[in-house]
Amino acid sequence: MHISELDTPAVLVDLDVMERNLASMAEYSARTGMKLRPHVKTHKIPELALQQVSMGAVGITAAKPSEAQVMAAGGLKDIFIAYPIVSKQKADALLALKDLAKLSVSVDSFDSAECLASASTAIGYDLPILVEIDVGFGRCGVATPELAVDLARKIEKLNGAHFGGLMFYPGHMMVPLEEQNLLLPKVNAAVEAAYAALVKAGLDVPVVSGGSTPMAPRSTEFSHLTEIRPGMYPLNDRNLVAGGFATLENCALTVMTTVVSTAVNDRVILDGGSKTFSSDRLLTGDHLGHGVILADADAVLYGLSEEHGHIDVTNSSRAYKLGERLRVVPNHVCATINMHDTIYGIRGEQVETVWKVAARGRVQ
Amino acid sequence: MHISELDTPAVLVDLDVMERNLASMAEYSARTGMKLRPHVKTHKIPELALQQVSMGAVGITAAKPSEAQVMAAGGLKDIFIAYPIVSKQKADALLALKDLAKLSVSVDSFDSAECLASASTAIGYDLPILVEIDVGFGRCGVATPELAVDLARKIEKLNGAHFGGLMFYPGHMMVPLEEQNLLLPKVNAAVEAAYAALVKAGLDVPVVSGGSTPMAPRSTEFSHLTEIRPGMYPLNDRNLVAGGFATLENCALTVMTTVVSTAVNDRVILDGGSKTFSSDRLLTGDHLGHGVILADADAVLYGLSEEHGHIDVTNSSRAYKLGERLRVVPNHVCATINMHDTIYGIRGEQVETVWKVAARGRVQ
Repeated sequence: MHISELDTPAVLVDLDVMERNLASMAEYSARTGMKLRPHVKTHKIPELALQQVSMGAVGITAAKPSEAQVMAAGGLKDIFIAYPIVSKQKADALLALKDLAKLSVSVDSFDSAECLASASTAIGYDLPILVEIDVGFGRCGVATPELAVDLARKIEKLNGAHFGGLMFYPGHMMVPLEEQNLLLPKVNAAVEAAYAALVKAGLDVPVVSGGSTPMAPRSTEFSHLTEIRPGMYPLNDRNLVAGGFATLENCALTVMTTVVSTAVNDRVILDGGSKTFSSDRLLTGDHLGHGVILADADAVLYGLSEEHGHIDVTNSSRAYKLGERLRVVPNHVCATINMHDTIYGIRGEQVETVWKVAARGRVQ
Repeated sequence: MHISELDTPAVLVDLDVMERNLASMAEYSARTGMKLRPHVKTHKIPELALQQVSMGAVGITAAKPSEAQVMAAGGLKDIFIAYPIVSKQKADALLALKDLAKLSVSVDSFDSAECLASASTAIGYDLPILVEIDVGFGRCGVATPELAVDLARKIEKLNGAHFGGLMFYPGHMMVPLEEQNLLLPKVNAAVEAAYAALVKAGLDVPVVSGGSTPMAPRSTEFSHLTEIRPGMYPLNDRNLVAGGFATLENCALTVMTTVVSTAVNDRVILDGGSKTFSSDRLLTGDHLGHGVILADADAVLYGLSEEHGHIDVTNSSRAYKLGERLRVVPNHVCATINMHDTIYGIRGEQVETVWKVAARGRVQ
């Protein structure tokens, strides 16, 4: 099927571009020995996760047990939950997957570890629990090496669980290179201090899991790092381009839209708004705009209603026709995919694959 | 079932509050004679739309044909598409519903009218087409009375369609009262000029459709208005409260979340982020914050990751416990509902109804 036969808005993934991105990260992982455990929250598609594993990923990362359920049902056999589970409901839901997948989790509190270990004990599992440390992002993670050691020791004493290593998320490092260079020694100091304290306490640290798409190319500069969890690298987006972490040519995902109104002077209206692109903002610079209109560098997608994209064409030399189609690179690929049930994998302009976003809406 | 048995995040609708909101708008409509045609994009739930109709709404409004499909299948019998349809695909999809529901649409171009009339003719339907005029929002709508008359005349000459009246959306009027008072005469001038020109041209204008939730209480101040299309009034949200259009007590929808981390100093992390609340910003004031935490007026939901809500509790005198549940009024109720497959209608703390958000993701 040609893409012109699809109704719009339609989310397209250029398979040639995606395969290049996948191969590039797989090659980096193989060359450096850095284990790759992609975060599937970006695409929420089991088939894509299987492709990542087939290209060398050691397993996957998910945020929520309900997301893990979809992935396990889809054939993923090694799932790490990079999210604190604090309820029996969620611990039971996760551990119920033990016959489908090897499971592991991270925590930043003993309550969470105890809750997970209790669910694990009940079904005779031995769950690896990693301790999350805060390396400066200020979201989750214990604050000091002493707290990390204390938590690891307590985990080791629990039935149904054992200490599986360290985990961190450098979410504050999606910044220009010179700022990264100032942050990296601080992140490394935090990891090194926790690592040393654990070793001194006689604990083995088999895994140090970190990373993100922006920091993936610098993974070998992180102390003790054994594993990275990038999510966006197969697809990329306007945010990664604006931050200098990708180019427009590396952006595999576009939203194909239709011009539905040109009635207002200097404005063109698309049939995609916040329910198509999400309202996620540009993270850098002026924070303005909602996507890159590939056909017109002078057009500005300045606003979104729920179902309308508002383009300012004041500075455009291009004519716009009702009914014509425009492809847009969205600000945030994870948020855009989460708006849709179906994604189309295309080769050139032919639809080759239709994916169901099976884990869409799996926030529990 | 008690709400404590639900996994989180869970979207709850307080039925007592919602029923009061529904009754209040129904009473206004009955008292003023202003016909009520609620926009279902807010809730995307056919059962709720049926409830609106059972309380006096003349029909419903939808944005996209795929949304209308769900509503027609759910038993809604009068559907107006307040959105320009410019493709044969969408026109055919809409007209295919003619045996289920009375259909009408609005357009701001002759191309759109022609496309719809062609699909209508093919199945022997006579489609009412309203002409959208721009009253100052600058999104869709023809710019002058002359263009409105020209378009209406051309519609009248089409087979399969007839001119159904005027439509506008005063999206720029969600502003403080004194700014509204400055805008209202301009909006009325635009409507009056178009109306007078149409009448002078010998055209009947059976419907003038306008309105929104913020402007609904002032509907009788709009010239020639016969019908309003508010969407959010059954539920309300932080944006409407911040704008002075609702109170927190009128907000029927809350998101029940769980505290999953307190490891970082002065921070509390919830298990809901942008994939639970959406990233829609506060439209007024400082534009900051992502929701109201009902249990703590001093806590600030200052940031959202995809699955984390970041609360600053620096100024809070309240203690936070891992695993405790917090209910949050989101910024934008339409965007929040669109993130979820299931919404729970509650009476007090008991779950009384479980709704499927059947038209979720229906952006085509």
